[in-house]
Amino acid sequence: MNDSPDRLARQIAFLLELDRLKTVLRRSRLLHEDRRENSAEHSWHVVMLAMVLAEHADEAVDGTRVARMLMIHDVVEIDAGDAFVYDVAARTEKAKKETAAAERIFGLLPEDQGRELHALWREFDAGETPDARFALPIDRLMPLLHNLEGGGQSWKEHGIRKHQVLDGNALMARGSSTLWDYARQRIEAAAARGDLTED
Amino acid sequence: MNDSPDRLARQIAFLLELDRLKTVLRRSRLLHEDRRENSAEHSWHVVMLAMVLAEHADEAVDGTRVARMLMIHDVVEIDAGDAFVYDVAARTEKAKKETAAAERIFGLLPEDQGRELHALWREFDAGETPDARFALPIDRLMPLLHNLEGGGQSWKEHGIRKHQVLDGNALMARGSSTLWDYARQRIEAAAARGDLTED
Repeated sequence: MNDSPDRLARQIAFLLELDRLKTVLRRSRLLHEDRRENSAEHSWHVVMLAMVLAEHADEAVDGTRVARMLMIHDVVEIDAGDAFVYDVAARTEKAKKETAAAERIFGLLPEDQGRELHALWREFDAGETPDARFALPIDRLMPLLHNLEGGGQSWKEHGIRKHQVLDGNALMARGSSTLWDYARQRIEAAAARGDLTED
Repeated sequence: MNDSPDRLARQIAFLLELDRLKTVLRRSRLLHEDRRENSAEHSWHVVMLAMVLAEHADEAVDGTRVARMLMIHDVVEIDAGDAFVYDVAARTEKAKKETAAAERIFGLLPEDQGRELHALWREFDAGETPDARFALPIDRLMPLLHNLEGGGQSWKEHGIRKHQVLDGNALMARGSSTLWDYARQRIEAAAARGDLTED
């Protein structure tokens, strides 16, 4: 590493660009304020989940790598926007935009750092390594909790039904059977009390 | 570790409580939206700074520990609120509230996890270890960048003068002379172009 002014300038340019992630809105609503969540505060929250829930991974995972993955997993939304987990068509279309976004945004960094974070993002996106398989249930659990604790707000707002929630999140079981079992039981209970429409 | 339902319930209770940090407003304003920043999105941003700028620490630091410290450094604001860096009186009074807040919030976790994160928060707060000394310039750099890039918004709004900015952030030099030199030059330039009132 060197302390050249150009290197620091590129790092700062990347870090300033990240401020835009605070303006990308998700479908989830906060529990204690009536507004939609943004992708920057969501990213912080899921890394806290990773720090606290790492022991529930089915396979051995490197908690630090999982946390780093989740720190950067949504930065592509600066260019591509947030895709609702139940909007399957939009998600397919977003893949191309996200690939281009990763190229541009990680490309702002000094080459060695950009390469490392870009590779980490691709690993998360592919979801095939144990670390990436565990990052997924962590990323999915928080919006489920927002709905489970908040009376099913974004489910109701978007007309989501129980089978969509179960099918759309079943991938969680590839990384953590404990967290998926917990989520599934609470989804059934939410449906039983009317917070989620039965099929 | 065990997978007892009570352990998972305590972890989830802690993670849900963290949603409140998204409602704590700081003095800094975003660069691309006209609103104040909240402490959750700030926390994400400074951990990104730590990931990218770790090479500029004066002493050898453990980047992962610095990142974990910064992840949790502001959770006490859920109870104690945010103290403006230039409001010296308020900061002294806040110390007691923050100590009680750390006790309550980390106490929501299973005992082993609560103890670890509480100790990490105290280490950050004391600012005496190399990791904590480096976490400070990282935490301070981002609000400086918000002002430097945003025409000195929160400086102007609160009548802050150049000597306050220089004195109030000089502690950055204890952790990173590179980042402090960079910030100091940009503060002088901001004063020269009128974004910050000369003394």
